[in-house]
Amino acid sequence: MPAGFRAGGLAAGIKASGRPDLAVIVTTGGPAAAAAVFTPNAFAAAPVKLSRAHLTATSSDPRGGFGWAEAIVSTSGSANAATGPAGEADQLEVGRLLSNAIGIPVTRTLHLSTGVIGTRLPLERVASGLAAIVPILSDDDAALEAAAIALRTTDSVTKIATTTVELPGTDGRPVTVTVSGIAKGVGMIHPRMATMLSVILTDAAAAPGTLWGLLRPAAARTWNQLSVDGDTSTNDTVFVLASGASGAAPVEAGSAGAARLGAAIEAIARDLARQQAADGEGASTLITATVTGARDDAEARAVARAIVSSSLVKAAAHGRDPNWGRIAGAAGNARLADAAVLEAAGLPTAEAAARAGSPATVDATILRISIAGHLVYDGSAGGPVTFDRAAARAAMDAPEVVIALDLGLGSGAGEAFGCDLTEAYVIENSEYTT
Amino acid sequence: MPAGFRAGGLAAGIKASGRPDLAVIVTTGGPAAAAAVFTPNAFAAAPVKLSRAHLTATSSDPRGGFGWAEAIVSTSGSANAATGPAGEADQLEVGRLLSNAIGIPVTRTLHLSTGVIGTRLPLERVASGLAAIVPILSDDDAALEAAAIALRTTDSVTKIATTTVELPGTDGRPVTVTVSGIAKGVGMIHPRMATMLSVILTDAAAAPGTLWGLLRPAAARTWNQLSVDGDTSTNDTVFVLASGASGAAPVEAGSAGAARLGAAIEAIARDLARQQAADGEGASTLITATVTGARDDAEARAVARAIVSSSLVKAAAHGRDPNWGRIAGAAGNARLADAAVLEAAGLPTAEAAARAGSPATVDATILRISIAGHLVYDGSAGGPVTFDRAAARAAMDAPEVVIALDLGLGSGAGEAFGCDLTEAYVIENSEYTT
Repeated sequence: MPAGFRAGGLAAGIKASGRPDLAVIVTTGGPAAAAAVFTPNAFAAAPVKLSRAHLTATSSDPRGGFGWAEAIVSTSGSANAATGPAGEADQLEVGRLLSNAIGIPVTRTLHLSTGVIGTRLPLERVASGLAAIVPILSDDDAALEAAAIALRTTDSVTKIATTTVELPGTDGRPVTVTVSGIAKGVGMIHPRMATMLSVILTDAAAAPGTLWGLLRPAAARTWNQLSVDGDTSTNDTVFVLASGASGAAPVEAGSAGAARLGAAIEAIARDLARQQAADGEGASTLITATVTGARDDAEARAVARAIVSSSLVKAAAHGRDPNWGRIAGAAGNARLADAAVLEAAGLPTAEAAARAGSPATVDATILRISIAGHLVYDGSAGGPVTFDRAAARAAMDAPEVVIALDLGLGSGAGEAFGCDLTEAYVIENSEYTT
Repeated sequence: MPAGFRAGGLAAGIKASGRPDLAVIVTTGGPAAAAAVFTPNAFAAAPVKLSRAHLTATSSDPRGGFGWAEAIVSTSGSANAATGPAGEADQLEVGRLLSNAIGIPVTRTLHLSTGVIGTRLPLERVASGLAAIVPILSDDDAALEAAAIALRTTDSVTKIATTTVELPGTDGRPVTVTVSGIAKGVGMIHPRMATMLSVILTDAAAAPGTLWGLLRPAAARTWNQLSVDGDTSTNDTVFVLASGASGAAPVEAGSAGAARLGAAIEAIARDLARQQAADGEGASTLITATVTGARDDAEARAVARAIVSSSLVKAAAHGRDPNWGRIAGAAGNARLADAAVLEAAGLPTAEAAARAGSPATVDATILRISIAGHLVYDGSAGGPVTFDRAAARAAMDAPEVVIALDLGLGSGAGEAFGCDLTEAYVIENSEYTT
């Protein structure tokens, strides 16, 4: 747990199962710089709209991307999406209850929610839960884990990642800064400019806009490269809060310190995205697609994402079938991301607009494909390669299968994370309303 | 069977199962006007490349969209995709064998192939099959059905549609023209500018470019609105051949006759697309999404397509679960099609380029959603609607489930076709290499 935060989680009775479903994180030293990315879904949930409004209120940034915050509240079991004005009033009431309990302005609360779309929050249970949780918030690692547990919906494991980075202190001497993240998966995951619920905390210091400038490219290269089932949720949100409590000097945009902090944030984002993919609904295998030799990074990421998003590639991975034809087919369909994602990843605005959705360049006469370390296709050698099928199948029977493509066209590289498609996914999503 | 064609199908031994796998269609009165749409997959198969080259050779149209043809050959069991120069030589040899057998230039042959990607065609078996099939080609309806049967891969039913339309004859008197189509499904279906294998035959007369002008918007409104699993095949091809043998006068682009012929072609395309969706791999239910009240037709089609493409909506349909939250989530993610598809559907080139991939406008406070005739969400009435869940579940237990959205924003309308996601889909695609 980075310095400057307290956290906690408990079962407030939102979930019928009785599992933990309410998490709260607060700052201990006043407002923390906050940055966020949200779902672009037109049915954005009440917590998404309220968080965006609060960030705008505290920073005057009209995009709602960054501002100041002192508390995050997360409810699990009801998404509070597509619930109309009543659902928006419910979410504001959650903010009021929390802000009263800890004595801060309501605009300094940020909100997460996940669960069934179209159901209302059980406000009385949330109120009782908030009254119970505030006194037990703690700054130890177990408290962060309790918050991570309370984020979960159909997740089978709790998702936490942490790293440290050295930055100049306010007194000029080096300070070790901690960056920790928690996240939930594991269905309706196919991010665009956002991801599932995730919170990254750091005791580094940065202005909100600077923090946002570090979060956006990190999310574009990690969570935007994650797909479980092709559906982008109504509630996707990532928050990064920087308390400054480490004593590190505020990082300036473009500085070496900002680059180091950005790399730490990206490392946490990547770690959590991999955990989310591995725990995809019904999944038994993490599929990692790595693409090199693309014309540029944006094209490499497009090809990688097309591969992990393919139902047929996912089903073949489940069957431990080194079916490279489906991989080639998926690569051949790759389209670049939305303009907003391309811009977040670093492309100039005009170029991002011009290239959004355009096909990635793939040349079947040059491309090479490897599955779990076995070369299966080599375009410059005529295409299909004779390989040891039994050995490839055996290598695919692992917790992670790496599909590696070398496009042979340039120096662009990228990766994407997904999971296999199993009967369990279908059963989970057809037999239960989630 | 429209006048001016002979057809046939038989088992040439390409498929290990011994099922029919070779189809041939020839014209009886010299070259027919031909139009085509092909997959945009960068791994376009050898038959796609050869057909495009032949259309260009017979018409000088550099896009390979239309020209003249006297024969179509289809092989099933091997896609001849990603097979390199050897696979392209194989396909040309198939063309040579066919053109020699029936005495036409090889450039007047068109090619279809479907099956496993990355496997070579068994040329000797195809040669024997062609020698056997040419003498038994026939102009009766059973022959067209035999060709349709030989197109099949994992299809569980044969897909044929036919209609008639009245056009002015060459002598000015009305002539009844027949338009018939055959198609195969049923996996790797998520068309962009194209679809699975399909052939439409008509005895109407039209210049090749005029015919293409009728096919492209029809495909954009039907096959481009079909999704089984989100994967666009390497082999997708639609051919329309117009023999002129009905005695109808050639339809002129923009004329009332062209509009009637175009409507007939679109009706056949829609009928076949619905058959393909209903027979999607593992499917038990056809899902039809109808969208009205959109800002324009392109936005309506985008929303409809997002709904039938959602894994979560598809799994809910399988569970007969009126889970409108997943429908709202999918609608909120809708993005307009590629520029090429928008242009084919009728948008001016510049507008198509500007709007490609952009979000469709959906307002959660106005939108209405019905599932199988039950109103489940009404934005202007606060959102979620109390409805008879048991009755809705019962209504969903049908061969076709209609999901109807009224966006309440304008007069745009569109539809899309998909199917439920079942355990059988996963088993079929994980236990077997297809």
